[in-house]
Amino acid sequence: MNLRYAVIGTGAIGGYYGAKLARSGQEVHFLLRSDYAHVKANGLAVSSVNGDFVLEDVLAYHSTADMPVCDVVIVGLKTTANAQLAGMLKPIVHKHTLVVLIQNGYGIEAQLAEELPGIAIAGGLAFICSQKISPGHITHLDLGHVNLGLYCGEKDCLVQVVSDLEAAGVAAHLSSDLERSRWEKLVWNIPFNGLSVVMNASTDLLVRHTAMRTLLKGIMDEVIAAATCCGYPIESVYAQRMIELTQEMTPYAPSMKLDYDQRRPLELQAMYWSPIETARRAGCEMPQTRMLACQLQFMSDYNGGAH
Amino acid sequence: MNLRYAVIGTGAIGGYYGAKLARSGQEVHFLLRSDYAHVKANGLAVSSVNGDFVLEDVLAYHSTADMPVCDVVIVGLKTTANAQLAGMLKPIVHKHTLVVLIQNGYGIEAQLAEELPGIAIAGGLAFICSQKISPGHITHLDLGHVNLGLYCGEKDCLVQVVSDLEAAGVAAHLSSDLERSRWEKLVWNIPFNGLSVVMNASTDLLVRHTAMRTLLKGIMDEVIAAATCCGYPIESVYAQRMIELTQEMTPYAPSMKLDYDQRRPLELQAMYWSPIETARRAGCEMPQTRMLACQLQFMSDYNGGAH
Repeated sequence: MNLRYAVIGTGAIGGYYGAKLARSGQEVHFLLRSDYAHVKANGLAVSSVNGDFVLEDVLAYHSTADMPVCDVVIVGLKTTANAQLAGMLKPIVHKHTLVVLIQNGYGIEAQLAEELPGIAIAGGLAFICSQKISPGHITHLDLGHVNLGLYCGEKDCLVQVVSDLEAAGVAAHLSSDLERSRWEKLVWNIPFNGLSVVMNASTDLLVRHTAMRTLLKGIMDEVIAAATCCGYPIESVYAQRMIELTQEMTPYAPSMKLDYDQRRPLELQAMYWSPIETARRAGCEMPQTRMLACQLQFMSDYNGGAH
Repeated sequence: MNLRYAVIGTGAIGGYYGAKLARSGQEVHFLLRSDYAHVKANGLAVSSVNGDFVLEDVLAYHSTADMPVCDVVIVGLKTTANAQLAGMLKPIVHKHTLVVLIQNGYGIEAQLAEELPGIAIAGGLAFICSQKISPGHITHLDLGHVNLGLYCGEKDCLVQVVSDLEAAGVAAHLSSDLERSRWEKLVWNIPFNGLSVVMNASTDLLVRHTAMRTLLKGIMDEVIAAATCCGYPIESVYAQRMIELTQEMTPYAPSMKLDYDQRRPLELQAMYWSPIETARRAGCEMPQTRMLACQLQFMSDYNGGAH
């Protein structure tokens, strides 16, 4: 049985994975905003380290109201748009639709489950260096695998999604513990996203500097301690592995750095305040993470020239 | 009995207090470097909220080797120059000379006492918004009082210095506990100096932003906890008072911000690493202060365009 896919948020994440699925023969309906006319006329271009391609004849829409009901909705929006997500989803979900949130941060599935009770929800963690560089044009620089885990609902559909992604050439893994996977990803995201903005530096520059590497490691240890306190113990060697992985990675500006440089809102709620608050409720303070969040809040509020 | 004064480091601090003393009739010998010729020809100008004046016929020197032996040496250098301080002092001290370090940070008296055993040393904490804006020209924008405390040696000379400063129109106080005074000053210096550099913002902008004010207060609480752990309990209301004082202060770029913008070395050892290490040895970690120090170290190392 073939699943009918929708992609909400056709950017660096949704655009990449959606294009891969469509190219492998899946039926994928894409929601686009500012890029709609361009993609309708020119298709969706992916410049990838694994080979470039252009997806022609994209099933493109300007509003979910015009889209068919789908079996799987892949959400690649920034979490800063999540306040609008439930409303956008309503026209395209049936009672067995699975919504897959391939987004950063923590607490986003819980929020959606509250707004759309009864819907099946999965979370996705993308380990990918990709970026939308112009309308309908995505570059994929490094990595690419995605971990998917069920938050609520039946598992069968998610298993099929993993299988479809694998068939499309995407390394997809089924996570048996989504919350743990989200905490694990935060171990990298919290220090590197925030410090790349505050220090105005790419990952390679950060990780090469001795005192900064100590700080990155210290923040990672703090996130690991918070995860452990919340019931998701992560081995302490994980931090060192992430440092080493980053040292080997292509020099890279994390998503929050791109957001900041392009004066878009920063994903502070999902990536910082929500895990800080979750940990605090479990009895664990995150002073360095909180400090980073305050610095980012300040920079975000003054980004645009109020200085 | 009149004391013969020397001023080492004729900048925002040494220049201001030295000029006030000289103007009141004290004999003051000034060490100058790049401003020597200008001051020799034009004098030392002070533009102050309390009235402008120019000190003519300055006793100016280019090297301490040419200066007379003095009773009191006021050191207004940046602590980043302290590695050279003992050598500079040798030609101008006799066995009863008092060296007054009007410098920021922690641990500087101990370092000098080790390098010049037997000499009397005091520490000075300047609460002043002043700045050297051009050769031989100092502006004084706000405040101006100085707390002086004995580190080692006889107290009589320091009492006389306080009295001379008072006679010169400077609000000078004798601190009975220098170490405590240094910790108290760090309560302001650690958050405001560092965050003004990292956030590229003046004190008023920082203190006006809600999340940033919470962070400033949090770092102050951390410094207070460290001081208390080191045996110098500071009341917790002190942090709130410092926040309020800063809200009332003239918008101001702290000294480290000026140093950074002018690509001078930052006083990281005296203002951050030394108190962090002192607190650590007493059993108290300072995670936010340490994080700020790492960020400043990174920015300092790349300041100058290595980015």
